[in-house]
Amino acid sequence: MKSVIEKLSKEKSTQWPDFFNVISQELETVEENLLVKLSAKSKLLKEIVSYIFLSGGKRFRPAICLLMAKATGGIKDKHITVSEITELIHTASLVHDDIIDSAKLRRGNETINSLWNDKISVIAGDFLFGQASVKLGELENSEIVKIYANVLSALCDGEIEQYSLLFNPSITMEDYIRKSTSKTASLFAACCKSSAILNNQDLKIIKHCNNFGLSLGIAFQIVDDILDFISNSNEIGKDACSDLKNGVITAPTLFALNSPDERAKQIRILIESRFNNHEKDFNKAIKLVFELGGCEKAKQLAISHIENAKENVSFIKDPELKGCLLTVTEAIIKKLA
Amino acid sequence: MKSVIEKLSKEKSTQWPDFFNVISQELETVEENLLVKLSAKSKLLKEIVSYIFLSGGKRFRPAICLLMAKATGGIKDKHITVSEITELIHTASLVHDDIIDSAKLRRGNETINSLWNDKISVIAGDFLFGQASVKLGELENSEIVKIYANVLSALCDGEIEQYSLLFNPSITMEDYIRKSTSKTASLFAACCKSSAILNNQDLKIIKHCNNFGLSLGIAFQIVDDILDFISNSNEIGKDACSDLKNGVITAPTLFALNSPDERAKQIRILIESRFNNHEKDFNKAIKLVFELGGCEKAKQLAISHIENAKENVSFIKDPELKGCLLTVTEAIIKKLA
Repeated sequence: MKSVIEKLSKEKSTQWPDFFNVISQELETVEENLLVKLSAKSKLLKEIVSYIFLSGGKRFRPAICLLMAKATGGIKDKHITVSEITELIHTASLVHDDIIDSAKLRRGNETINSLWNDKISVIAGDFLFGQASVKLGELENSEIVKIYANVLSALCDGEIEQYSLLFNPSITMEDYIRKSTSKTASLFAACCKSSAILNNQDLKIIKHCNNFGLSLGIAFQIVDDILDFISNSNEIGKDACSDLKNGVITAPTLFALNSPDERAKQIRILIESRFNNHEKDFNKAIKLVFELGGCEKAKQLAISHIENAKENVSFIKDPELKGCLLTVTEAIIKKLA
Repeated sequence: MKSVIEKLSKEKSTQWPDFFNVISQELETVEENLLVKLSAKSKLLKEIVSYIFLSGGKRFRPAICLLMAKATGGIKDKHITVSEITELIHTASLVHDDIIDSAKLRRGNETINSLWNDKISVIAGDFLFGQASVKLGELENSEIVKIYANVLSALCDGEIEQYSLLFNPSITMEDYIRKSTSKTASLFAACCKSSAILNNQDLKIIKHCNNFGLSLGIAFQIVDDILDFISNSNEIGKDACSDLKNGVITAPTLFALNSPDERAKQIRILIESRFNNHEKDFNKAIKLVFELGGCEKAKQLAISHIENAKENVSFIKDPELKGCLLTVTEAIIKKLA
């Protein structure tokens, strides 16, 4: 294990995209705190946590949090802590998601459940949630404790809703957006909102920040779901088309299912039969989703949420910071280029 | 599933032991809040949570918390919340422990991982931790947020330490006590300490409450570990001798291993060989632990911690409440009678 961690340490280069330049120093602090300052007593837990934070992750959420902090009055120490909390909760949920999805790869590296086992993954995820709680305690701000506690509940609601709706082609767009809000957007919204709260902004601005995070998060999830369809395994660092294979119905499939075209019924039947466990049936379903323009329509939906996100940062006066946040929103759609 | 829950609802009788009489009303409120007021949005999650809280549990931790609250100034609403937080964290950790131990039975009922599966158990445990966080937020008390956040970290440290030391007969008594403190006693200490803090007690009293919880918790764990040896499956509602079978070395085995008797070496060899996967070797190890007085010595160790707990409630002036807390400590040892 030690050699794997050493290899990852050498490979690691923290090259942030240009639009993170204005917060690169603070982002570096967050990175360092995650890598070396988490207080696991056990050697094994320390090793696992190092592996987790060395094996990728773009620190997108902490960056958004810091940009929003800078745009709403400046970055304080507590914003650094909120950024860390956000990344800890995100990472913990990924570790537990990988158990739930029996995933073998994450960001091109083996998952914890694959490299160790499910039991270790349960504990490692719990530990990261625990560290997030420790940092929440350090904030000494009950409002933010409440916001993040509700995110934890939302994450579980989203995850169980996804589980309840596996291989169910009757899932509605409303179900999908609600699930994506719980599973993904709630955390984006929490960090944006908290940044404004810590800068003592008024309720109107706090609401704009919250809505920016919500819209951005939903768009982020839709794009992620499209990428699952259009990328190969090397590009996304995990199995391609794994969502539909596992019965998770996302925006592209939903649009295809909602098409008036006769082929929509075929997709429905294939999903209901769980592809009869045949690769052939599964590939046919994928082909039909593409034929019915599922990915293209999903992209349009993501763009509409991005537009919504953009409107919510129009209150920011500093042109450079507003520009950075707008570039962030566009970067999400550019992942599909 | 619905019928299982209905059956458990009918069977459920909340008969608390006599020494809980002075707090029975508040304990009933805690029980009701756990059973009906947790805010899961998903139907499946609601069902699972009902199953969990209907299928047993003596609410020992909430009771201790309420008794300590009453003994240090009176029970406030926030003490009810702390009691619920304590039971939520305890229950969440059990749900995740059952994944880690691949347990089939808990309190005589099927475990979540057995009735549903490991994936659902991960989410259910996370949800309970999340609900504990929501209630921690409601307390609006940063000191208590910090105390419970540290408990969450300790639980993981204890769990991973136990995992790291499986089938390792070189584990020391110090390792065992440290692990038991992290896994069990930290939560007892947290609820006792928090009760005193919420009653604005001085540091000396808070320390006594903390130490009472720590000693009681360690004794509780030792007794639990002895019961695993001496009970049959029906009595403890789970597989008997499951600890040693799974490689978890607890107080009785430790005392036997530390004996100067030649047979200690045999136990060591049997554990190191993981019983060669043979029932016969495993039964031999159990027999040797009994022959070398492991359970009896472990009981003496538990008694010494109980004595320590008792000393720490000598500050309580009200004879009835002091009596209740002393009876609680004795009830732990009486489980071995």
